[in-house]
Amino acid sequence: MTHSGFRFEIIKKSTSCNARLGIVHTPHGDVKTPAIIFCGTKANVKGVTINHLQQENTQIILSNTYHLLLQPGPEIIKKAGGLHKFTGWNGPMFTDSGGYQIFSLGYGGVDAEIKGVKLPKSKKSLLKITEEGAFFRSYINGKRILLTPELSIQTQIALGADIIVCLDECTPYHTNKMLVSNSMVRSKRWALRCKDELERSGNGKQGLINVVQGGIHEDLRLESSAFANENDFDGLAIGGSLGKTVDEMYSIVKMTKGILNDNKYVHLLGIGGIKDIFTCFKYGIDTFDCVSPTRIARHGIALVKVKENKIKNSNNVNITSAPFIEDFSPISNDCDCYTCRNFTKAYIHHLFKAKEILGGQLISFHNIRFLNKMMEDIRNSIESDNIDAVEKEYCAE
Amino acid sequence: MTHSGFRFEIIKKSTSCNARLGIVHTPHGDVKTPAIIFCGTKANVKGVTINHLQQENTQIILSNTYHLLLQPGPEIIKKAGGLHKFTGWNGPMFTDSGGYQIFSLGYGGVDAEIKGVKLPKSKKSLLKITEEGAFFRSYINGKRILLTPELSIQTQIALGADIIVCLDECTPYHTNKMLVSNSMVRSKRWALRCKDELERSGNGKQGLINVVQGGIHEDLRLESSAFANENDFDGLAIGGSLGKTVDEMYSIVKMTKGILNDNKYVHLLGIGGIKDIFTCFKYGIDTFDCVSPTRIARHGIALVKVKENKIKNSNNVNITSAPFIEDFSPISNDCDCYTCRNFTKAYIHHLFKAKEILGGQLISFHNIRFLNKMMEDIRNSIESDNIDAVEKEYCAE
Repeated sequence: MTHSGFRFEIIKKSTSCNARLGIVHTPHGDVKTPAIIFCGTKANVKGVTINHLQQENTQIILSNTYHLLLQPGPEIIKKAGGLHKFTGWNGPMFTDSGGYQIFSLGYGGVDAEIKGVKLPKSKKSLLKITEEGAFFRSYINGKRILLTPELSIQTQIALGADIIVCLDECTPYHTNKMLVSNSMVRSKRWALRCKDELERSGNGKQGLINVVQGGIHEDLRLESSAFANENDFDGLAIGGSLGKTVDEMYSIVKMTKGILNDNKYVHLLGIGGIKDIFTCFKYGIDTFDCVSPTRIARHGIALVKVKENKIKNSNNVNITSAPFIEDFSPISNDCDCYTCRNFTKAYIHHLFKAKEILGGQLISFHNIRFLNKMMEDIRNSIESDNIDAVEKEYCAE
Repeated sequence: MTHSGFRFEIIKKSTSCNARLGIVHTPHGDVKTPAIIFCGTKANVKGVTINHLQQENTQIILSNTYHLLLQPGPEIIKKAGGLHKFTGWNGPMFTDSGGYQIFSLGYGGVDAEIKGVKLPKSKKSLLKITEEGAFFRSYINGKRILLTPELSIQTQIALGADIIVCLDECTPYHTNKMLVSNSMVRSKRWALRCKDELERSGNGKQGLINVVQGGIHEDLRLESSAFANENDFDGLAIGGSLGKTVDEMYSIVKMTKGILNDNKYVHLLGIGGIKDIFTCFKYGIDTFDCVSPTRIARHGIALVKVKENKIKNSNNVNITSAPFIEDFSPISNDCDCYTCRNFTKAYIHHLFKAKEILGGQLISFHNIRFLNKMMEDIRNSIESDNIDAVEKEYCAE
């Protein structure tokens, strides 16, 4: 499957690990990889105008098909001329399949599931999964909706993102292997239906990503990867349960990436912590996405290099805490984001104490810039073969 | 009292009414009048970065001494180098005295008072008024604070705004004339104490505004105005109760402005509706302030010229209402604000339905630009003697 629109190009492979420099070519511009994709769940990055996204060197954003399917609905966005015109973001854009939210909300979230928290029945939105698709209840109006592979792709065609994703079933961590296997095999059938639907109804420019499933089981990951390799998708993603601990996650990502076709673009779904990025780009992961950078910003947490953090051995600084009441320096002296060029920690601290949303916005700008700069430094480190030095600069030793 | 900093200059007087074109010169730049002052209550305009304020041609913003006295406190802002440095807003800035909030919160707000709504005792923050000042309780930590004229001025010196206001007592509408009179006379004594304090402790650059009181009583307004005229303040403001109806307000503003020294800069406190501005600039009011433009924006209300409003005979359009679900045009085709250049009503409607704060931000940008443009059109209409034509363009016939 080759598109005039989507194309992945590897520029350089590292000699010290599996990291690679690449470019994702899309109809709305190029994405230099490794890259981070910022979440604009409901067709906007919360509190951040396109102006500010651009000012902080953002390459690519993501919207969630699940949320947009329910509000405003794909017809509205199609009539608007697609997500790019609707949102005003004219750069590369990514949409997921809608599956993850249906399943995670259905099961009450992976966290809740791992912790054994049981959701009340009324909160469960996932109703039934059949070969045809997944029945769920709209959280907006209670309407029963059947999300099929075809509907997911039709929706993503209407949205018009540059990179779109096959519908897959995400089984939770505590699922017996037989069920994980059945689900993974069904996800293969769903992926082929997605591919057919895109070929039938698409414009030939959107890149289609297949998600490798199989939970924590090596043989199932192997089977899912073999399918991914044999079928001509534009790119691949590693999804599903990646285990209970960070180390287990890294080992599954490493193992899975290792058996995927090395020429393909690979995205790691929903993972984007700083340590995660530094670990997984070295396995050859090309892009990451995570709601965390802007979510923690809205709670007063700014990202810094560990050596800059005077409070604790971490990338996170809580600007709402007492030491910042009279701190008239920017979040980071090294940073040239809009926030660090214009505002002090004391001002941002005040905004949080005064319950002003501008506080969360200012930290969002900073966190976006910080991660975009970090990815740039990572790309430069692959180029100049000094990955370890850059990792040491950003992370705890 | 002449400052190297603050100076008011009248450029042209209208021949058809008492409107005038002017310039308020301040240490942080000039304000062309008539002008509107946008409210940045707690040292920020809610959800609007300085970037966007500037982009929409904002001339001057206001912060509230009452709120900043309690959080973060004047010491912090003084250490930051003043409000300009703290907030990043480097243009002209206005602070009020803190009095209005103490009295309006103390009495439960003018609206509540007029409507006869009684506040529970625990909600009343105003404790006692003596010759010395006003005792009130902090809404943040319950601490008892005495706001004297001297403390108000010391606080406003620490904040460092370009235009500052004398502490006055605001009596509610339902107050008998004797009490209004006593209060007005006390406000005169407080104003002299403010003037003394600024001369003793200020840098000679802040412009001091005296507030004309007297409620709805012509003889009391006359007495307060005489005091204002006789004493050398940099500018004057019309404050206090302006009656129960809009017509009563206009008649009190007109009468009061008419007896003030015609060379002085005059601000109308807390009034800034479109109809109010069009009525009162013709009486010779130079500046207006109002929280409404950004507050209504956060509730989905955009400002337009009446003739542009297809829903009703009003300047207000509720973008959250159903007709806009599929309206792919900007709020106004005539407007070149960031929002109208980039986004449709359908997108903004979606943001409100999805409970995204960006919706309120986008309408805030528009409302700010709309009013800045309206003031520019008003200034041009004074210049070219066609006030009526501009009023007809903006207002209902």
